[in-house]
Amino acid sequence: MRKLLVEGVGTFFLVLVIGLTVVAPGAGAMAPLAIGAMLMVMVYAGGPISGAHYNPAVTLALTLAGKSPKNDLVPYIGAQFAGSVLASMAVKFLKEGSAVVAMEPQAAPAFLVEILFTFALAYVVLNVATTKKAAGNSYFGLAIGFTVMAAAYAGGGISGGAFNPAVALGVTVMGLIAPAYLWIYFVANLAGGALAATVFRTTNPDLK
Amino acid sequence: MRKLLVEGVGTFFLVLVIGLTVVAPGAGAMAPLAIGAMLMVMVYAGGPISGAHYNPAVTLALTLAGKSPKNDLVPYIGAQFAGSVLASMAVKFLKEGSAVVAMEPQAAPAFLVEILFTFALAYVVLNVATTKKAAGNSYFGLAIGFTVMAAAYAGGGISGGAFNPAVALGVTVMGLIAPAYLWIYFVANLAGGALAATVFRTTNPDLK
Amino acid sequence: MRKLLVEGVGTFFLVLVIGLTVVAPGAGAMAPLAIGAMLMVMVYAGGPISGAHYNPAVTLALTLAGKSPKNDLVPYIGAQFAGSVLASMAVKFLKEGSAVVAMEPQAAPAFLVEILFTFALAYVVLNVATTKKAAGNSYFGLAIGFTVMAAAYAGGGISGGAFNPAVALGVTVMGLIAPAYLWIYFVANLAGGALAATVFRTTNPDLK
Amino acid sequence: MRKLLVEGVGTFFLVLVIGLTVVAPGAGAMAPLAIGAMLMVMVYAGGPISGAHYNPAVTLALTLAGKSPKNDLVPYIGAQFAGSVLASMAVKFLKEGSAVVAMEPQAAPAFLVEILFTFALAYVVLNVATTKKAAGNSYFGLAIGFTVMAAAYAGGGISGGAFNPAVALGVTVMGLIAPAYLWIYFVANLAGGALAATVFRTTNPDLK
Repeated sequence: MRKLLVEGVGTFFLVLVIGLTVVAPGAGAMAPLAIGAMLMVMVYAGGPISGAHYNPAVTLALTLAGKSPKNDLVPYIGAQFAGSVLASMAVKFLKEGSAVVAMEPQAAPAFLVEILFTFALAYVVLNVATTKKAAGNSYFGLAIGFTVMAAAYAGGGISGGAFNPAVALGVTVMGLIAPAYLWIYFVANLAGGALAATVFRTTNPDLK
Repeated sequence: MRKLLVEGVGTFFLVLVIGLTVVAPGAGAMAPLAIGAMLMVMVYAGGPISGAHYNPAVTLALTLAGKSPKNDLVPYIGAQFAGSVLASMAVKFLKEGSAVVAMEPQAAPAFLVEILFTFALAYVVLNVATTKKAAGNSYFGLAIGFTVMAAAYAGGGISGGAFNPAVALGVTVMGLIAPAYLWIYFVANLAGGALAATVFRTTNPDLK
Repeated sequence: MRKLLVEGVGTFFLVLVIGLTVVAPGAGAMAPLAIGAMLMVMVYAGGPISGAHYNPAVTLALTLAGKSPKNDLVPYIGAQFAGSVLASMAVKFLKEGSAVVAMEPQAAPAFLVEILFTFALAYVVLNVATTKKAAGNSYFGLAIGFTVMAAAYAGGGISGGAFNPAVALGVTVMGLIAPAYLWIYFVANLAGGALAATVFRTTNPDLK
Repeated sequence: MRKLLVEGVGTFFLVLVIGLTVVAPGAGAMAPLAIGAMLMVMVYAGGPISGAHYNPAVTLALTLAGKSPKNDLVPYIGAQFAGSVLASMAVKFLKEGSAVVAMEPQAAPAFLVEILFTFALAYVVLNVATTKKAAGNSYFGLAIGFTVMAAAYAGGGISGGAFNPAVALGVTVMGLIAPAYLWIYFVANLAGGALAATVFRTTNPDLK
C-alpha cells in the first residue's frame, strides 16, 4: 500500500507540473525543464520505497526485464492512472477559464517519436537503476528526469511529448490532446518499454 | 549559534536571488532556475552543519517527523526570518528606483498551489535527507533545489511561488506581494509541511 | 557486439535530439540544453557497458591515452557513424517538409572553435571517467553532457557546434551544414581529441 | 607545474565561454547557464589535480582557511590571469567585428553585489570541497558551478557578474567593462573571499 501511495504521489506531481506549465499562461519554453525536474525529484524521493516508476511503460519494462514483481504490475498502473487523473482535475481547477486547444498530432510521426523516446526512457531506467554495476549511484534521478526533459524538447512539437500512458491519459482529460489519439500513446509507449527490456537483456547478458 | 548563522546565510542568499531575479530588470524566464540553483548550493554548503532548512515549513516538517530537535524549531525560524528580512533590505538598496507591483493572488488557487508544492518540497526533503536508505547520497541538494525550481515554474503565476513563510515575508517586505495575502503563505506552507510529515511517517513505517 | 550496440544507440539518440531540436520548428534557445542532457543520460546508461564514447574524437583520445583497447577503435567509430546516419534519416522523416538552410561557417574561426571545445570535451572525459582518483563518482555523465551544452551555447553560432565527427556527418546528411565543410570537423575534432590525450598524460604523470 | 597548467586550462575555458556567450551574437538569456556549466565541468575535471580554483578570490579564501598551501597563492593567481588573458584574445579573434559596449556599473551597488556573491562562491567552495564531512561527494562541481550561474542571473545586470578577479581582467581586455572599474572587482572579490574564510572558520570550529 505504501508503494502505491508513493507511485500515486509521484505521478500526481509529474502530471500537475505538466498541466500547470503547458496550459496557458504556462512556463513557455521552460516547461520541459520544470517537468523533467519534477520527475527527477520524485524519482529521488520515492525510489527507495516504490522504485519510482510513475509510468506504466516503465513498470512494464521493469517487469519484462525481471526487475519488478509481476504482481505489482496492475496495482502500480492503477495508482499511476489515479494520480494522473487527480492531477488533471487539480489543473482544471487551478487554470479555470484558460483556453485549451487539443493537439491533433499526425499519427505516423507521433507514433515513431513516442516509441523512440519511451524506449530511451525505459533503457535509461533499466541501466541506471537496476544493475549491480550502477548500484548505489547518485545520478539515477538526474538521468531519468533529464531523459524526459530532452525528449520533450525534441519530440514535444510532434507528439505532444507524453512517453507515458498515465501522462497521456491526464493530458487528454485536461483537453490538451484529442481523445481519438490516446491509443497512439498507449500502444507506442508500451511497445517502447517492451523493446527496451529486450535490448537491456541483450546488452546485459550477465543478467541471465 | 553556528547552526543559526548557517540558516541565516542560506535564507539570505535564497531571498536575495529571488529579489534580484524577480524585481525588474530581473532574469525573466530564467528566475526560477537561478532561485532553485541558489537553494541547491546553499543546501549542499550548509547541510552538514545545520541541516540546511532555510524554510520554517521544512523545519516544522522535520520536527514533526522526529528528524530535527524540538528546541531548534523557534531559533531556526527566527534565523530564517532574519536572513530573509536582511536580504529584502539588500534588494531594496540594489534595485532602488525599480517599479514593483504587488501581486494580488486569488486566494483559493493560491492556497492550493502553496499547500501542494510545500508538501512536495517537505516530502522530498524528508525522503532524500533523513532516511537510512538515502544516507551519504550526493543528490540531496539537487533534489531539494530543483523541487523549488519546478514548483516556481508551475505555480509562480498563480501564487507567486513562495512555498516558504520566510520567503513570503521577504517578498512582502520588497513589495512583490500585498501584505493582506501573507496569511495564505503562512497557513498553507506550514500545513503542507505538516502533511508531508504525516505521509512520510506512513510511507516509511520502519521509522517507528 | 553489445558494446557496439550501446555505442550505436547512444549516438543515435544524441543525433536524433540534435536534429529534432535544431531543424525548425525546433527548441530554439533550449536546443543545447536538450542535446547536452541526452548525451548525459546516454553516458550514464551506457558507461558501464561500452564506456559511452558516442564520438570518434573521444574514442581516439581514450585510445591514445591508453584507456580504450586499440582493437575497439575502428568498430566503435563504425557504430557511431551508423547510429548517426540512422538518426539523420529518422529526423528527415519526422521533420519532412521543414526548410533546412545549410550553414557555411567561416573556416578559420570554425576550425578554432571545434578544436578548442573538442579538446575540452576529451579532457573532461579523460579526467572524470578514467582516473583512479575519480573512480566510482556519480558526476561523470553530468560533466560530459554539460561540456557539450556549454560548448554549443558558446560556439554554435561560429561552427554549428559539432565537436564530434559522427555528429558532423549526421547534421551534414540532414542538410544543416554544407558538405564542403565536413573536413573541418573531421580534422579539428580528431586533433582536439589527440591534444587532450597529450595534456592528460602530462597532468596525470602517475599514469606512466 | 601540472597544477598550474590545469589552473590555466580551466580559467581559459571559463573566460572563453563568458566571452563567446556574452559578446553579441551570444547566447542571450542562456549565457549564465553555459558559463556555470563550463565552470562546473572544469571543476570536476581539474579538482583532483589542482583543486580547481580558477579564481584568485577562491585561492585566497582557501589559503586563509588553511586549505591551500601558501606557496601556491602567487603562482596559482598568475596561471589564472594568464589563462584569462589568453581566452580574451581568442574571443577577440573569434568575434572579430562584433560591437562591444563597455559596461559602466554604478560603484556602490556593483561593489555590494560582487562582495556578496564572491562570498557565497567561496563559502560554497570551502564547505563542499574541503571538509571531512563532505569528503568523496559527487556534488562539489555542481554546487560551485551553479553558484556562479545563480549569481550571474541575479547580479549580472548590476555589476556585470564577475565574482572573480581573473574574469574581471579578461572581460576588461575584451572591452565588456570599462578599465576604470576594474578596482571594484579586485577589491570586492578578494574581500568576499576573505570574509568567507572567516565565516567558514566560525561555522566549522572543529577545524581549529
